[in-house]
Amino acid sequence: MNDPLLFSEVRSAETVAASFGEETEPRLKQVMTSLVRHLHDFIKEVELTDAEWEAAIDFLTRTGQSCTPVRQEFILLSDVLGVSMLVETINNRSLDVATESTVLGPFHMVESPPREHGENIALDGKGEQCLVTGRVTNESGEPVPGAQVDVWQANDEGFYDVQQPEVQPERNLRGVFTADDTGEFWFRSIVPRYYPIPDDGPVGQLLEATHRHPHRPAHMHFQVTAPQHRPLTTHLFVDGCPYIGSDVVFGVKESLIRRFDLVDDPDRAAELGFDNPFRAVHFDITLFSENGKEVHQ
Amino acid sequence: MNDPLLFSEVRSAETVAASFGEETEPRLKQVMTSLVRHLHDFIKEVELTDAEWEAAIDFLTRTGQSCTPVRQEFILLSDVLGVSMLVETINNRSLDVATESTVLGPFHMVESPPREHGENIALDGKGEQCLVTGRVTNESGEPVPGAQVDVWQANDEGFYDVQQPEVQPERNLRGVFTADDTGEFWFRSIVPRYYPIPDDGPVGQLLEATHRHPHRPAHMHFQVTAPQHRPLTTHLFVDGCPYIGSDVVFGVKESLIRRFDLVDDPDRAAELGFDNPFRAVHFDITLFSENGKEVHQ
Repeated sequence: MNDPLLFSEVRSAETVAASFGEETEPRLKQVMTSLVRHLHDFIKEVELTDAEWEAAIDFLTRTGQSCTPVRQEFILLSDVLGVSMLVETINNRSLDVATESTVLGPFHMVESPPREHGENIALDGKGEQCLVTGRVTNESGEPVPGAQVDVWQANDEGFYDVQQPEVQPERNLRGVFTADDTGEFWFRSIVPRYYPIPDDGPVGQLLEATHRHPHRPAHMHFQVTAPQHRPLTTHLFVDGCPYIGSDVVFGVKESLIRRFDLVDDPDRAAELGFDNPFRAVHFDITLFSENGKEVHQ
Repeated sequence: MNDPLLFSEVRSAETVAASFGEETEPRLKQVMTSLVRHLHDFIKEVELTDAEWEAAIDFLTRTGQSCTPVRQEFILLSDVLGVSMLVETINNRSLDVATESTVLGPFHMVESPPREHGENIALDGKGEQCLVTGRVTNESGEPVPGAQVDVWQANDEGFYDVQQPEVQPERNLRGVFTADDTGEFWFRSIVPRYYPIPDDGPVGQLLEATHRHPHRPAHMHFQVTAPQHRPLTTHLFVDGCPYIGSDVVFGVKESLIRRFDLVDDPDRAAELGFDNPFRAVHFDITLFSENGKEVHQ
């Protein structure tokens, strides 16, 4: 016989937790019990007023009702409260060994085309020309030949190809490169630009009320995979770009920032088909090898 | 110059809190800072997985999209997680002096008609007949003449009049009584029945997954107001009724449970126009007097 679930301010969270039936799937019970305890702790700490509770109900309702097949306002809310980054980080701890992860973002919606090393993924030729080089290794420093390096980025105006289908060439600024025998990859592109997340909904109102801008700093997306290695989803951030210290979704980790150096070398520029001077960035990627764990577990 | 908001698992909540601008309204900043800290603490404690985060986003989205002008699924969610009761209780602490509060509920949607003491609010005559008596006093035990005692309740089948407009008489089981010179009120009614909250949406799925029933135990709603006294919203619960120890919205406080005694008294029954035996319950109500605070503040 259970104790009756009579309410009191002091024992509120325990009372709610005690309502979860014994047959509840253990992980669900654990998650819900923790959620209720932290939620009640929050309400008690700030002594939430009736009017604030009503405003919260209204905000959550409008957030849900703003969602459409092409707009996920609750993910945006998770993003701007740092929740998406926290979940991503907890589930992909780098242990100071592998390259750190960051959020996937909503623009990996089309498949990047396979490309040869050295190809120029800036199909429209607009923006500041940039050489990107890097090497994929495992945590012991051994190259990972054949690793698939999937890259996508915004253009010089801060838009992805899928946002401007009438303006940008199809698959502009996207490509999959296959690391060579030494684990290396290289390609030509342009320096991406910062851009705002959609801020015309409830999440935009929250940003405004808390005096936050809606921008993400300039970055290139990388998704790197290889058999027997943990997949990596991350960004390469442009050192010194606007908003690098105030990403609205908190995607920036210090280890992911690289200088996009200005290179003054007419011969090299000519080789690359670039104007002189041009930009160059180097981004080495370290994957966790999984030592056949997938097979044995 | 602010520190850059670079993400790390350890300092995640501080980084998000540091993004709130200095010009943010102080109370909003306090509430959001506390919310973020407790939300991040929860995620770290359970090490929420990507799949669980996706399920949460989906659940919240469906909850928002289930809301209509006549259905507020986020309030239901707040109710079944004990949040509504906690906010209600924090904002109406009784300090062991006044009558304790509980949730308003969604069925106070029409105005109760003024009625004379002794009137029978059970207009359809169905159910177990019951005499309700009580007295409204202040915290010093002095009567509060003229206090307005607004009562509404479900019928013998667990439905409010507004849920069954085609079956129940209009304003069935509702009435406003005016406390007399000694603070007393009395009326005739029937014993209410327990009933389920709407459980055909996302909140119902959550209840099912956590092996909880959707029922509220039998209760009469009271809203009591008087000039210069803090308004009281509460329930009178039927001792021993089904679900009294497991209210799905955690509305039951021990101090609000009363015995609905069986009275075997043919003369009294005849006086009341009741069959013998009948039920009787007594519910004294203590309001906080506000000593003209409303005027002076």
